[in-house]
Amino acid sequence: VRAASGDHSLADVLHVIRVDGARSRAEVMDATGLTRAVATQRIAELADSGLIVPDGTAPSTGGRPPRHVRFAADAGTLLVADLGATSIDVALTDLGGTVLAHLGEPADVSDGPVKVLGRLEQLFTRLVARRRSDPAVRAIGIGVPGPVEFGSGLPVSPPIMPGWDGYPIRDRFTARFGVPVWVDNDVNVMALGEWRHGIARGHDNVVYVKVGTGIGAGLISDGQLHRGSQGAAGDIGHIQVTPDADVRCRCGNTGCLEAIAGGGALGAAGEQAARDGRSPVLAAALHERGRVTAQDVAAAAGRGDATAFALLQRAGKDLGNTIAGLVNFFNPSLIVLGGGVSHAGDVLIASVREVVYRRSLPLATRDLLIRRTALGDRGGVIGAATMAADELFSRTALPRWIGDRATGAGVAVAHV
Amino acid sequence: VRAASGDHSLADVLHVIRVDGARSRAEVMDATGLTRAVATQRIAELADSGLIVPDGTAPSTGGRPPRHVRFAADAGTLLVADLGATSIDVALTDLGGTVLAHLGEPADVSDGPVKVLGRLEQLFTRLVARRRSDPAVRAIGIGVPGPVEFGSGLPVSPPIMPGWDGYPIRDRFTARFGVPVWVDNDVNVMALGEWRHGIARGHDNVVYVKVGTGIGAGLISDGQLHRGSQGAAGDIGHIQVTPDADVRCRCGNTGCLEAIAGGGALGAAGEQAARDGRSPVLAAALHERGRVTAQDVAAAAGRGDATAFALLQRAGKDLGNTIAGLVNFFNPSLIVLGGGVSHAGDVLIASVREVVYRRSLPLATRDLLIRRTALGDRGGVIGAATMAADELFSRTALPRWIGDRATGAGVAVAHV
Repeated sequence: VRAASGDHSLADVLHVIRVDGARSRAEVMDATGLTRAVATQRIAELADSGLIVPDGTAPSTGGRPPRHVRFAADAGTLLVADLGATSIDVALTDLGGTVLAHLGEPADVSDGPVKVLGRLEQLFTRLVARRRSDPAVRAIGIGVPGPVEFGSGLPVSPPIMPGWDGYPIRDRFTARFGVPVWVDNDVNVMALGEWRHGIARGHDNVVYVKVGTGIGAGLISDGQLHRGSQGAAGDIGHIQVTPDADVRCRCGNTGCLEAIAGGGALGAAGEQAARDGRSPVLAAALHERGRVTAQDVAAAAGRGDATAFALLQRAGKDLGNTIAGLVNFFNPSLIVLGGGVSHAGDVLIASVREVVYRRSLPLATRDLLIRRTALGDRGGVIGAATMAADELFSRTALPRWIGDRATGAGVAVAHV
Repeated sequence: VRAASGDHSLADVLHVIRVDGARSRAEVMDATGLTRAVATQRIAELADSGLIVPDGTAPSTGGRPPRHVRFAADAGTLLVADLGATSIDVALTDLGGTVLAHLGEPADVSDGPVKVLGRLEQLFTRLVARRRSDPAVRAIGIGVPGPVEFGSGLPVSPPIMPGWDGYPIRDRFTARFGVPVWVDNDVNVMALGEWRHGIARGHDNVVYVKVGTGIGAGLISDGQLHRGSQGAAGDIGHIQVTPDADVRCRCGNTGCLEAIAGGGALGAAGEQAARDGRSPVLAAALHERGRVTAQDVAAAAGRGDATAFALLQRAGKDLGNTIAGLVNFFNPSLIVLGGGVSHAGDVLIASVREVVYRRSLPLATRDLLIRRTALGDRGGVIGAATMAADELFSRTALPRWIGDRATGAGVAVAHV
């Protein structure tokens, strides 16, 4: 029976104004089903709290023209981070997810949480110190490259993050910055950002596929992020795509998609081609930097290298076969390809398209789009900001925001 | 902005009483977030309409003991049908999905809609004629073995239903019986029934896999049926499981799961084994009935036939590999196996379990259950009743019910 508790109307009104773009009381009533009296009162409360502001008037249809409102994205800021396998990206954004300041640098997530999060804390502190006249930080959002139990914010057996299992990321940052902290899997966060601010806007069913060192997916299911029952949804990198027992994956199994079509596999195949003398372009890359990466393979393909082209095509085909299965199962209206490898030319996405349209059922592909991410390298931090704002203004957390304003309680980060 | 329209509180109150089991005003307020005044009014309206009835009192905690209410499942009946590839099952149920009368017979869906639906109409009419003192029919729910555009109730390019593409099933039955009609894919309907009334109760993320002549899946995603963007979700029978170009599927592609592990494939493999002299038990079945079915293979395995056992084990392994991929992607807490082949002994389900637990990631299988359907052969009609009741009492349709009662308008089927 206890599906929910308390009065949700305040959060619901803010949601339709902030996310769906309702501007007038009439639109709020229409979108929420609330009565005129309740809608009027909730709009007034949100205006008092500073979360919505007047935004002109609508054309009059006779009588007094209705006043318009909009979400006050500048009523606070968010500190956000996208931890990748080999990078840290941090940003200060407004409450609408617009990036105000950004810092990025290489990092190795396998160095463990003490070192990596220590560095993240320094970067956050630097962003806060620089923010000058920007409003106070209201929340922190962090994406990490592994499964997270979203309710607790704890990483759970993340395969490429040794030492992170069960590490209390949330507690550490709450203690340090005194604001609420939310942590999720990086691909979930990217899917959320792409859905709210990128190419997936307006789609209710989306599969976001990140092809980086590893391969993972984020799902929007019937208009909400689908995390699955343990927060493990989207782990498509370890779907078996070949019975070949020689293809060993870092997960311990054999024949996984990631072990064949991931950035690591692509780089290794490119390096082998360089050593075998099958690709002069890749041989030059190997000679220059001592190794070949997936980016090198993509660049070589772009310069017309036949071997590199074939490697990308092969990876696209394997990826396409797996995605075709997901299309049959889940019937999304959009597939978004993101991550480092996806940025690199059109070969990969063309191969994926070709296989998906051939292998998926006609009904499932009738209106299916396959597109590259619109947010590029910023997808992770924009997604983390989207997550943090959604949680901060949720039915559960919003009353706390309003309460803090009413009692004049500041936010500790102002004193950092 | 127009996410929804109008006041949903009446439908929401009925939902928490009917589905979630709220019994008192306090529980209704807790579950819906409505104020005391609105909850009181809505409960009174539902009682006036006959949809909820008094159900004793709660223990007093001092003062007047609170009155309890429950959903009046006997306030009407539903006519429901489960059209399979080779069978028709019809039932008269109460509004809670309890079967009051049931009829079933063989049928061939490829005979086309005119013949099959003509027969269905006769069966419905027979059920209605028999119903005697049962209350009036309020709605019709039909499951069909192919994709359906749920909004319109039209089948869309159903692969095994020649002649059904775009056939107006809903209009035909509305015209004949004068009540609202809802049509959906049979596996969606089974998933819904299993989730509300069967083994999937309480699970928010469920994959129901039907293994019959074909193979299909129904998904519960975050507490609602996931139909996908074209109503095509769950079509897992045509996921490629082998690159072997000799495995031809009726869909036109090669290497599909259904062409390897479906009931049709299993029967054909059994018949081949019978002809090759590899299985005396299957040879006897072939001799007796001129063909070998998947049921024969399952029965032979149950009697210790090694060849039949190996065939089922192989099908279970292929099915398990595909399901393992879905588990990684979707992270359900429960897999339900249903359909004719699943009823037949433990070999298949044991093989599926073995592969899924080995191939899926530890986090995704930590609390994963794999179970057989609890509703057996009745799963289709119970599911169709669940769908019809959910739609009849939805935010959109409920006001019409209340309106009809208020104006004393009867339901035409009473005159059949």
